[in-house]
Amino acid sequence: MFQTFDAPSDAPAIPERIKRLRALIADEGLAALIVPRNDEHQGEYVAPGSERLRWLTGFSGSAGVAVITRRQAGLFVDGRYTVQARAECGGGTFDFPGLASTALPGWLKAKLKAGDVVGFDPWLMTASAIQWLTGQLAGSGITLKPTRRNLVDVIWGKERPGAPDGPVVPHPLKYAGQSAEQKIAAVQKGLKAAGQDAVILTAPDSICWLLNIRGRDVAHNPVVLAFAIVPVTGKAELFVAAEKVTREARAHLDGVVKISPPAALKTRVQALRKAKKRVRFDPDRGAWWFSRALGKSAVRGGDPCVPLKAVKNATEIKGARIAHVRDGAAVVRFLVWLDRALADGETIDEIGAVRALEEQRAGSQALKEISFDTISGSGPNGAIVHYRVTEATNRRLKPGELLLLDSGAQYLEGTTDITRTVAIGTPTQEMRERFTLVLKGHIAIATARFPKGTRGVDLDPFARRALWQHGLDYEHGTGHGVGSYLSVHEGPQSISRAGMAVIEPGMIISNEPGYYKEGAYGIRIENLVLATEPDVPDSGEREMLGFETLTLVPLDRRLIDTALLTADEISWINIYHAHVREVIGPELDSPARKWLEAATKPL
Amino acid sequence: MFQTFDAPSDAPAIPERIKRLRALIADEGLAALIVPRNDEHQGEYVAPGSERLRWLTGFSGSAGVAVITRRQAGLFVDGRYTVQARAECGGGTFDFPGLASTALPGWLKAKLKAGDVVGFDPWLMTASAIQWLTGQLAGSGITLKPTRRNLVDVIWGKERPGAPDGPVVPHPLKYAGQSAEQKIAAVQKGLKAAGQDAVILTAPDSICWLLNIRGRDVAHNPVVLAFAIVPVTGKAELFVAAEKVTREARAHLDGVVKISPPAALKTRVQALRKAKKRVRFDPDRGAWWFSRALGKSAVRGGDPCVPLKAVKNATEIKGARIAHVRDGAAVVRFLVWLDRALADGETIDEIGAVRALEEQRAGSQALKEISFDTISGSGPNGAIVHYRVTEATNRRLKPGELLLLDSGAQYLEGTTDITRTVAIGTPTQEMRERFTLVLKGHIAIATARFPKGTRGVDLDPFARRALWQHGLDYEHGTGHGVGSYLSVHEGPQSISRAGMAVIEPGMIISNEPGYYKEGAYGIRIENLVLATEPDVPDSGEREMLGFETLTLVPLDRRLIDTALLTADEISWINIYHAHVREVIGPELDSPARKWLEAATKPL
Repeated sequence: MFQTFDAPSDAPAIPERIKRLRALIADEGLAALIVPRNDEHQGEYVAPGSERLRWLTGFSGSAGVAVITRRQAGLFVDGRYTVQARAECGGGTFDFPGLASTALPGWLKAKLKAGDVVGFDPWLMTASAIQWLTGQLAGSGITLKPTRRNLVDVIWGKERPGAPDGPVVPHPLKYAGQSAEQKIAAVQKGLKAAGQDAVILTAPDSICWLLNIRGRDVAHNPVVLAFAIVPVTGKAELFVAAEKVTREARAHLDGVVKISPPAALKTRVQALRKAKKRVRFDPDRGAWWFSRALGKSAVRGGDPCVPLKAVKNATEIKGARIAHVRDGAAVVRFLVWLDRALADGETIDEIGAVRALEEQRAGSQALKEISFDTISGSGPNGAIVHYRVTEATNRRLKPGELLLLDSGAQYLEGTTDITRTVAIGTPTQEMRERFTLVLKGHIAIATARFPKGTRGVDLDPFARRALWQHGLDYEHGTGHGVGSYLSVHEGPQSISRAGMAVIEPGMIISNEPGYYKEGAYGIRIENLVLATEPDVPDSGEREMLGFETLTLVPLDRRLIDTALLTADEISWINIYHAHVREVIGPELDSPARKWLEAATKPL
Repeated sequence: MFQTFDAPSDAPAIPERIKRLRALIADEGLAALIVPRNDEHQGEYVAPGSERLRWLTGFSGSAGVAVITRRQAGLFVDGRYTVQARAECGGGTFDFPGLASTALPGWLKAKLKAGDVVGFDPWLMTASAIQWLTGQLAGSGITLKPTRRNLVDVIWGKERPGAPDGPVVPHPLKYAGQSAEQKIAAVQKGLKAAGQDAVILTAPDSICWLLNIRGRDVAHNPVVLAFAIVPVTGKAELFVAAEKVTREARAHLDGVVKISPPAALKTRVQALRKAKKRVRFDPDRGAWWFSRALGKSAVRGGDPCVPLKAVKNATEIKGARIAHVRDGAAVVRFLVWLDRALADGETIDEIGAVRALEEQRAGSQALKEISFDTISGSGPNGAIVHYRVTEATNRRLKPGELLLLDSGAQYLEGTTDITRTVAIGTPTQEMRERFTLVLKGHIAIATARFPKGTRGVDLDPFARRALWQHGLDYEHGTGHGVGSYLSVHEGPQSISRAGMAVIEPGMIISNEPGYYKEGAYGIRIENLVLATEPDVPDSGEREMLGFETLTLVPLDRRLIDTALLTADEISWINIYHAHVREVIGPELDSPARKWLEAATKPL
């Protein structure tokens, strides 16, 4: 079991923690302290001992910043988390001024006075964030100061969980498709072309991709929390605790990379500066500490692994197809179970659905992890885009409602992410209409052809057109990049208003338009798609890219209103369903196969 | 007659001009001189005396930069003009290294050496361009230096046409809809909110809009070439030659703005700096001279007239509708003439088409100017996106070919811009298919609904989808903003890959997808559309914007393949055609009305 549903509230302990922190802030001569949710790697998932924001404030969301002054406390979260933050951190301790990137400087200026000093942990804030905040505070007399130790950790003390000790394991070539040596050579080639002497890697998924290793330091992402330096020539260096490196991993890494203790990182960065090396570093993604330590040696530049990792090689693509067959069969088995259990009058709730789905995935024996906490939202819970079911919010699935299930798995062959919206009992005509409008957007992405150079921003409108024509929309992007047995969210590509990265053949992206009726129901239809090699359509003139849909699970026919579909759209659904039947059918037992046949019958 | 068709080549004189310029460059101690096509206002059209690039190189395109060194000469143009530049400036005098914004620094570094100084006219290059080029040359030892006078003008001498002396005339409130006082107050409110003391306006169309004046200093755009300064409080100041201001204009401007001679501008800018005022200035649009003169007084900021001007008021919208009825009737009369003349076996060529169309427009007695040189491209000439017919390229219209006609007019009530593609004789099935694909894109824009906050970049893909699905595309944006009896190209809005400005109700934009088959034919379908007020579609939840099509001329039914259209698309064409018939019909004589009835018959 990978997902837990209790949300133990630390609420009673929080005022005392804040009080102790304030005393420490005063001892340090500070007027305030910034407590971000980030860890040293600025990733989406952090280890338990890095859940400082949650421990201090009770806020359990995946992004946010608290600022504690001697008398006030502000909790800055984005639109997704406004309601949750107020629910988890109510009681008058906190202000909720808005988004950190818009409201934080103003709040600081309103609460503090000239001469006041605001502390921050130099490892937990990016260089760009500190630079921006410094600029915003210019003229106010309020200054920022890095703390010598993390003040939250001081008061958290012995209760604070230790550093994660997940073992480093090799990720075999039969899954990775390219050796670490080849990948390092590609990075070094880029450094050479740019006239740079080295690059500092701070993103765990980049390092794991580069060195063909995996770990289990954080939930759902099979990464090792580590740093690395790749010089333009010579051996790369991985900074990770020696005791985490299994014998197998050591054999795998031997000759490829030098393994050094985390404590050596500081010395190494300082040596690069002393030698006046030109060191590539991404100030938008890396900790401020590096910027300061590198000084004039820092050359602004993106993580070179990101664009390389995004384009999957033939082995990774083959792996993705295997993973999707396995995962599709598991999800279909779950849907079979769900339909039967409901037909038998069993009581099923959101948590029960999550457990049953996990069981089906685990049944493959190949499941390493789920790729994120399953979103299982029935009725009004489905309309909460980032809903995570807990014992407190759990609802029984009721006839006439929709269940939105967004889930995924980590397999050695690849990472999956799928959302299906399922009718419980008989859906209303409005539900069917809106499901079908979302489906039209989904099909518009799945069938799009587009010239080389097209960016995600150029595709996103296709997913929204049918909804827009009916005065509807959704407040999230249409698609994100997906890793290969790595992070389920990876860049640089996305299909969204902000998607400025060019879509390249070999990229895996989610296709997930949605519609959310507050207080009533949520709809999302998500398949992963693979950007495919150029082809020239009949009578066309240009090489065009397109998408191949990887996910293999039927769409709920009860929710499709064919009157709203074009002949081409109906044909796409029928062809997709026939393909699902053909590929997934042989994976199922006979009753399940029968269910699949009915579920994939031509419209 | 507004358009001329001769393209007198200066080619024989050019080597001598370059030689004299080189001598002058040497005298000035320079290694090279930059000669841009821009004038002091960085607009699309320049006065004859500012056509320095053309005079010096023979290149007649609307954008480009030459660099003359003591031995070499480079002409930098964008993709549109590559072929034309080589044709006009061949003979070995020039290199054509590519686009200035990518190739110019490298070319300079290759041709010059450390210590060399490159001269430029401080009025003809934007502050951003010089800053960028300085950065690109950093480390090379090559430096940039403003010249004290324009060196091309020195050698051009007395033959150089004098400054334009078009009269300044008032643009009456019944067309402008808002008084200059109100507009100035709106600009001043923005300055106050931004804490700025003044703004420098360098764009003639902004100044004409602000002060409700028009002029005729350049072709096709009814603008006065002038500068202005608007202080946060008090009177604005217009820098323009007194002799150009008619008595009428003086009466109109009296009390609204102080009129000062152009020579006073320098003193005024220097005084602002001395007084340590915070002066808003757009370094991307304004000359480098201002940046240097303002020094630390310069505050980076966009021209505040641009967003205000882009959103048309009720009077301007009413005027646009009147202009489009008048213009639509003229274009229909032209199409009637064309069809009859061809049926009668008359010989018609591209220039003849331009003249006939101009005559129809002039027949309204309301035509002030054409809004740009008509693009009249038959057969392969239609595939040249920025084609301008000359006596040398003129082609007879032949059966089985297409004629692409892109034209527009300036009326006091508004500016028009329309493209129709017309079948001469019987079109091929391929032409009909591709015309219909372009039409599908056109209809997708015309019928789009979209939420507030949607940018042009979010709409552009709708215009391309049908072409993309067939492996086709076009290499230009889908739409540009259009002024109100002002520039036919105005920002900030556009429907294109780069269209980051939000579409606001009241904006007028072109909707002009196309398709170009090199060496064969070109297709473009262009109507102007008005972004309309929010409405909520039936059963929708959000206020959505949409477009109202302003242009009123039938689409060539002979080129429409209904088999490729959806029922909704056919319905849109039929409703549009019925509307054209209803509104334009009464403007026509009986035979023309009969033609229109046939041309707008339901599909």
